[in-house]
Amino acid sequence: MMPKVIFITGNENKYREVEFVLSKFNIEVFMENKFRKIELQSDNLEEIAKKSIEYISQILKPSKDAYYVVEDDGLFIEALNGFPGPYSAYVYKTIGLKGILKLMEGIENRTAYFISILGVLCPDGQIRLFKGIVKGVISSEIKGIHGFGYDPIFIPEGYDKTFAEMKLEEKCEISHRARAFQELAKYILSTFKH
Amino acid sequence: MMPKVIFITGNENKYREVEFVLSKFNIEVFMENKFRKIELQSDNLEEIAKKSIEYISQILKPSKDAYYVVEDDGLFIEALNGFPGPYSAYVYKTIGLKGILKLMEGIENRTAYFISILGVLCPDGQIRLFKGIVKGVISSEIKGIHGFGYDPIFIPEGYDKTFAEMKLEEKCEISHRARAFQELAKYILSTFKH
Repeated sequence: MMPKVIFITGNENKYREVEFVLSKFNIEVFMENKFRKIELQSDNLEEIAKKSIEYISQILKPSKDAYYVVEDDGLFIEALNGFPGPYSAYVYKTIGLKGILKLMEGIENRTAYFISILGVLCPDGQIRLFKGIVKGVISSEIKGIHGFGYDPIFIPEGYDKTFAEMKLEEKCEISHRARAFQELAKYILSTFKH
Repeated sequence: MMPKVIFITGNENKYREVEFVLSKFNIEVFMENKFRKIELQSDNLEEIAKKSIEYISQILKPSKDAYYVVEDDGLFIEALNGFPGPYSAYVYKTIGLKGILKLMEGIENRTAYFISILGVLCPDGQIRLFKGIVKGVISSEIKGIHGFGYDPIFIPEGYDKTFAEMKLEEKCEISHRARAFQELAKYILSTFKH
């Protein structure tokens, strides 16, 4: 029996990234979008992810070979006091990338972080959290065609191109999401009982 | 036995406004800040207020003479696709009034709405929602010293000053919150059995 990850999301872009990351650990991942994700309003991603997986765990029985995962992620811009943070999806839908660039006009400190938190229901019935983070800067213009969300305005530290100018393989070497799922994969491989 | 309103909030500014509005109906209001308000992430204020009062009603028994009220409100700016909307409090804390004005630079359509939704646990054990709305425009600069939140940049329709340039009495004749609580007061007075 091999362990598998059930990724509770409606976002196929995220799913493809996770599939790529976990394939290196020989862990299969399945996308599950039949659950309504309940997300709290909170400044704290950990709290949002924890409550979200707790809610789902009320109706799901733990499975012997499956790790149920919800992800909460956000872009935290230092000069904007963490905005858009936990509400990155809503901000993307309303003011969008152009709104963020407008807010950043004339601002020198362009440091930002992408953070990903996984809330995981493990086979032992316990809930565990895993975290991934990548530091970078907000670009001065929208660039690139790959990825999704804020990828076209985020330049990771040590690079001179945005996430959206990288192919999936390259982004997944360093992204917050990749790092969080790598942590999960290591945990799974170190504890899973065949 | 007179009906009373228990307003579940940690915001004293809101409490003072509600106290003023309900005093005209001879309804007493008490501020209650010992409950942790659970707020969902949703684009829909009604859903947020409904879930919030449902959550509280799981632990509160209905009272013969008390209406338990949670309020969810937000500023919806037309040209920004409803931003900041349900996340007005977080946006205020992070990018603030200056951030909103920066986003509105060069934008002609400055129409905005303040919306207030009350989620109410009534003496009969039922949950009811009440709504108040006020239309206006986003000012070009921060003005006024009264009120709180977005008041210094919101000019209600038919006026040439911001909410923050009005005293509480004047704001409470037209504000979204006042209107929602007036609706609640009318409902209480028409249905409450002495």
